[in-house]
Amino acid sequence: MKKAHYNDTFQLLKPKGDMKKIRVGVIGATGYTGEELVRILARHPDVELAYASGKEAREARLQDIFPYLKNSVDLACGAFSFEEAAKNCDLVFLSLPHTVSMTVAPLFLKAKKIVIDVSADYRLRDAGVYEKFYKTPHADRANLARAVYGLPEMNREKIKSADLIANPGCYPTGAILGLLPGLKEKLFVMETIVIDAKSGVTGAGRKADKALNFSEVNESLKAYKVLEHQHTPEMDQALSEFTGKKVNVIFVPHLLPVNRGILSTIYVGLAKKMTANGLLEIYDAFYRKEPFVKVYADGSLPEIKHVAHTNFCGVGLCVSEARNLAVIVTAIDNLSKGAAGQAVQNMNLRLGLDERAGLG
Amino acid sequence: MKKAHYNDTFQLLKPKGDMKKIRVGVIGATGYTGEELVRILARHPDVELAYASGKEAREARLQDIFPYLKNSVDLACGAFSFEEAAKNCDLVFLSLPHTVSMTVAPLFLKAKKIVIDVSADYRLRDAGVYEKFYKTPHADRANLARAVYGLPEMNREKIKSADLIANPGCYPTGAILGLLPGLKEKLFVMETIVIDAKSGVTGAGRKADKALNFSEVNESLKAYKVLEHQHTPEMDQALSEFTGKKVNVIFVPHLLPVNRGILSTIYVGLAKKMTANGLLEIYDAFYRKEPFVKVYADGSLPEIKHVAHTNFCGVGLCVSEARNLAVIVTAIDNLSKGAAGQAVQNMNLRLGLDERAGLG
Amino acid sequence: MKKAHYNDTFQLLKPKGDMKKIRVGVIGATGYTGEELVRILARHPDVELAYASGKEAREARLQDIFPYLKNSVDLACGAFSFEEAAKNCDLVFLSLPHTVSMTVAPLFLKAKKIVIDVSADYRLRDAGVYEKFYKTPHADRANLARAVYGLPEMNREKIKSADLIANPGCYPTGAILGLLPGLKEKLFVMETIVIDAKSGVTGAGRKADKALNFSEVNESLKAYKVLEHQHTPEMDQALSEFTGKKVNVIFVPHLLPVNRGILSTIYVGLAKKMTANGLLEIYDAFYRKEPFVKVYADGSLPEIKHVAHTNFCGVGLCVSEARNLAVIVTAIDNLSKGAAGQAVQNMNLRLGLDERAGLG
Amino acid sequence: MKKAHYNDTFQLLKPKGDMKKIRVGVIGATGYTGEELVRILARHPDVELAYASGKEAREARLQDIFPYLKNSVDLACGAFSFEEAAKNCDLVFLSLPHTVSMTVAPLFLKAKKIVIDVSADYRLRDAGVYEKFYKTPHADRANLARAVYGLPEMNREKIKSADLIANPGCYPTGAILGLLPGLKEKLFVMETIVIDAKSGVTGAGRKADKALNFSEVNESLKAYKVLEHQHTPEMDQALSEFTGKKVNVIFVPHLLPVNRGILSTIYVGLAKKMTANGLLEIYDAFYRKEPFVKVYADGSLPEIKHVAHTNFCGVGLCVSEARNLAVIVTAIDNLSKGAAGQAVQNMNLRLGLDERAGLG
Repeated sequence: MKKAHYNDTFQLLKPKGDMKKIRVGVIGATGYTGEELVRILARHPDVELAYASGKEAREARLQDIFPYLKNSVDLACGAFSFEEAAKNCDLVFLSLPHTVSMTVAPLFLKAKKIVIDVSADYRLRDAGVYEKFYKTPHADRANLARAVYGLPEMNREKIKSADLIANPGCYPTGAILGLLPGLKEKLFVMETIVIDAKSGVTGAGRKADKALNFSEVNESLKAYKVLEHQHTPEMDQALSEFTGKKVNVIFVPHLLPVNRGILSTIYVGLAKKMTANGLLEIYDAFYRKEPFVKVYADGSLPEIKHVAHTNFCGVGLCVSEARNLAVIVTAIDNLSKGAAGQAVQNMNLRLGLDERAGLG
Repeated sequence: MKKAHYNDTFQLLKPKGDMKKIRVGVIGATGYTGEELVRILARHPDVELAYASGKEAREARLQDIFPYLKNSVDLACGAFSFEEAAKNCDLVFLSLPHTVSMTVAPLFLKAKKIVIDVSADYRLRDAGVYEKFYKTPHADRANLARAVYGLPEMNREKIKSADLIANPGCYPTGAILGLLPGLKEKLFVMETIVIDAKSGVTGAGRKADKALNFSEVNESLKAYKVLEHQHTPEMDQALSEFTGKKVNVIFVPHLLPVNRGILSTIYVGLAKKMTANGLLEIYDAFYRKEPFVKVYADGSLPEIKHVAHTNFCGVGLCVSEARNLAVIVTAIDNLSKGAAGQAVQNMNLRLGLDERAGLG
Repeated sequence: MKKAHYNDTFQLLKPKGDMKKIRVGVIGATGYTGEELVRILARHPDVELAYASGKEAREARLQDIFPYLKNSVDLACGAFSFEEAAKNCDLVFLSLPHTVSMTVAPLFLKAKKIVIDVSADYRLRDAGVYEKFYKTPHADRANLARAVYGLPEMNREKIKSADLIANPGCYPTGAILGLLPGLKEKLFVMETIVIDAKSGVTGAGRKADKALNFSEVNESLKAYKVLEHQHTPEMDQALSEFTGKKVNVIFVPHLLPVNRGILSTIYVGLAKKMTANGLLEIYDAFYRKEPFVKVYADGSLPEIKHVAHTNFCGVGLCVSEARNLAVIVTAIDNLSKGAAGQAVQNMNLRLGLDERAGLG
Repeated sequence: MKKAHYNDTFQLLKPKGDMKKIRVGVIGATGYTGEELVRILARHPDVELAYASGKEAREARLQDIFPYLKNSVDLACGAFSFEEAAKNCDLVFLSLPHTVSMTVAPLFLKAKKIVIDVSADYRLRDAGVYEKFYKTPHADRANLARAVYGLPEMNREKIKSADLIANPGCYPTGAILGLLPGLKEKLFVMETIVIDAKSGVTGAGRKADKALNFSEVNESLKAYKVLEHQHTPEMDQALSEFTGKKVNVIFVPHLLPVNRGILSTIYVGLAKKMTANGLLEIYDAFYRKEPFVKVYADGSLPEIKHVAHTNFCGVGLCVSEARNLAVIVTAIDNLSKGAAGQAVQNMNLRLGLDERAGLG
């Protein structure tokens, strides 16, 4: 086992003995992302799931909520208690609704705990943009600048020493990974980026909502929040930072009748003549060493089923030479690479573990 | 067009001119069954959809709620008004939650309107059994005895002159139709009837409920209300009345990840040696003239897809001669033969129209 | 009932008596589109389903293949016989695989029968383009020029007197209907049209194919034939004819895990500043009298479930004024407005019947 | 890591050095069960996936067939070669169609390799019964007696020293696990066992078959092979061996529109008065130490989603005291506990590893 890695400000986290596993907690363990975090952490070889809290106040055993944890995790899961969580954990995942995370994260940061926030609360640097899209003022501006956007393929080094990691949204993960290599090589006409994304229903969370009733979603498909989804500024910010230029994508999400998975079909003008193979070579070089991005050979494209229940992002593409246009397709599991899996990947990076540990 | 048929007590319903269509209303038009009623009635050749009300108070046009009604129905759909409904209709469908229907039906009956109640409120003759299974005292015992159980294959003649028709539940429709011919010929060992039924999700209604969220139902299957579902006494009552003996079925429903349809697999001991063909002949004879029951030839069985979006009940069976056992399979569309379609079939019978009118 | 309308060359079709219904046939009745044709024609008030043939050689009764036809259609369905079909029908629907239709259509045309071809064989005017996309030379170039592209919203008058109607493809129907009003008013930047379409699986036909196995399609989504689907030249041809300018769309289809339905998300640059309401007014005016196109009010968009099992096309849109961009969303049922329903709509037009007859 | 355990006849399997992992092969790696085996073995801590062959003759890299294997498995996957497999493996999984396994297994056994056969070929002791249900004479009767039925909850000790393990069928696994505790305590009336099972579509294998086309299965449900499914004699044999009495179950399988999972609803008469809690205590005691069977508390029942993508079997039950009847519900993932997961569990037992290794 590799040694855990800590930055200066988190000396208290150092394991007291060699044998001691890092203790982690999941705040919000009963939603879809929380469950996926629990599922992954329960089999993670290098950390110990030491705390879990759920939405419901009532005390329960985690293995009664998730029967498949029998004989692997024995842990209470009740209402959230900061004191309990802080006492038992070195690192916490906040799998909370946005607007809630930002009231809890400062407490853990003050107590010198590493925080990986799976909500949207620390993704946008500009509190004004946050307020515009999330309809509430930001309650923890002080820590906004401190947050590192947790997309390993873009920010791996920064993640390794971050105290507060803002885990990316599911749509941005699929979209950004489809664009980085071409943007890096300045191959794309920036103002032409169209992202047509289709997401499984777990992306909307585990909640009672007539619009998410099985009979409303099954045998149907709809576009929603067309040109105004809250993940749009997150994509724009990440791509602008990456390129150093102002990027504004055209983004339309759709609600897909599957449980898990996002397929993103990206249309972008090419700044110069290119073949599919030429573009694929650039993508392949960019992602060759990435543990969780798979570039497809010419003629094949990722499908949701290829990546469901894995932490992989599949990337494939086609080129119209006549039109100077690339169509890039990416596929991820929205609960894994789009949420819990990526959060664990970030944890692994932050703790100096094998980046793939616990991720299949 | 055949002439409408009325019984003595409903003289006011007689059309004033030859050209006048019977005016019908749907109380509760925005649920799944209500929508299916509207869909069928909008294309029914012999009646006019003259009133509709929904759950929401807000006034809307029906064709804005259901876009496919453009150019076929121009009708307001707002909060329920008894006065409006009574003024505009000769017959009303109550597509309301149980416990609500029984507060509304007496008003219409007093106003000499024909009532077809799609809820459970008038199906059980015994108010005590109703209270046990629906957890509330019956509020209209006076009209209970008056109600006719609207299963045409069992009660066609009574339906033709009923003022208050209790439209059967979806599970009972599928189960009872699988048993009638054998029961009539006294071929079954009554205490052995096991009904394992699987229903699509629209059976649970159009509502916000975490347990009905797409991601909870999709890629899953569960049994629920095992041995205690409220449709059990309804089956017992109908089968007991039909046979003249006390019947108690063993009934287990399951929630199936499809929108529409119920498949019922019925296991029953045979009172005497029989072949599959021998039993099929009896079923075929019983149902030969039925417009909406199809008996399958030996070796083939009904599937949900055969009957979805139709008013048909498919019936097939297998026999184990070694075990003296029959396995009978029936399939219906829970929203059509199991609810709205059967309600219209009942209306057609009551009004003396072609029983199949409007039912494709 | 309105009187049937015939053009000069088809005098033989005139009904011999007032009571006689037009006799129609379905060649290829056992595929998904063929079944849908049978389903619609069986309840059509003004025509008689007088002939059906299937893929399998074995003789069967249509109501044994489709159980819900009990008591409504009594017809044999065996191997195709031109003589039988020609003897019994005035009009035939060819619901055959492409490359097969063009070997059969000339026979019926020669026999003075009206032909509605649901395959792709007569949609492309240019036999060279046909050969490029369908990988075989066209076998009936003589009749190509005679064919009328059967999109009523574009070609209603021509359809009324056509002997050979080329029923549009499912993807082109959804895409073209989303573009016509804006193109008519010259509001769109022609070279920017991106069509991201998602289709249910019945679009691929009723066949054994590992890639269409339930477990391959369910819980997944994939793009396919990216930028090279055979429906692309069909869209280009129709839009070029409509505008009088050369149009080349960017088209990417996806395989969606639903049985029926296509959602098309169309991205197009605006030639001048427009608001969503301004654009909607133009769409609304264009489609106001159309019996089967529903324009959605601002803020709402069509979903597949709104149109499934109907002959409607729903059209809605959003505008980004900052980007001079419109996102147009259309929804159709690929088996109805995208195939069988539209074919019957064409038949109604051709025979001078109510355009909506039999289409609910 | 625990030490591997071998029986006398397989001395060649002993690791040459402490560091050496057991080398295993998957014959038939590209079907659904084969893929699941590869997925599990790729992350198994104690064995090395050293050989894989597929159905197609064409040579390919396993990580190109299954993209999520990038960076974890680098292995060719081509046509089956016994020599290659025998050279590279100590243990092989035969994930082949039945009737094929029995031609391959003898070769490996002769070469002193451990064989875990996931097909049906070695499950039935009686070659006559095999021929009756699988429509072909058994080709390897010599090894039939040697095979151990690989249900750990029934045969754990025998499995630990078996050379040839017949991995149970998916339906028998779910059914038998629902019955063992009650049968052990002689609580059931043996001739009354009814098993109504519903299986996901991967149970039918990865193949081209019109009946498995998405549009045929989706939005439907059907019973099939009623009272004559080939898994019936397998259940009868196992239950008869376990009880020492002749058992004949009544078994009806259904094809469920989900990818993975089997729910079995079992109806059985009680030999004496029992409460649900009384029966649950017996089940709980029987399965308390089992790593992969979870008994549900009174009032709750397993659902497919609880066990999908896990190796668990969930068991719950209800009792009708009035009827002396138990309804037992079990849920498994047909590809995991019903096939590949159980095969690895058997491998773990046979090799003396932690029974849960790799099964997360």
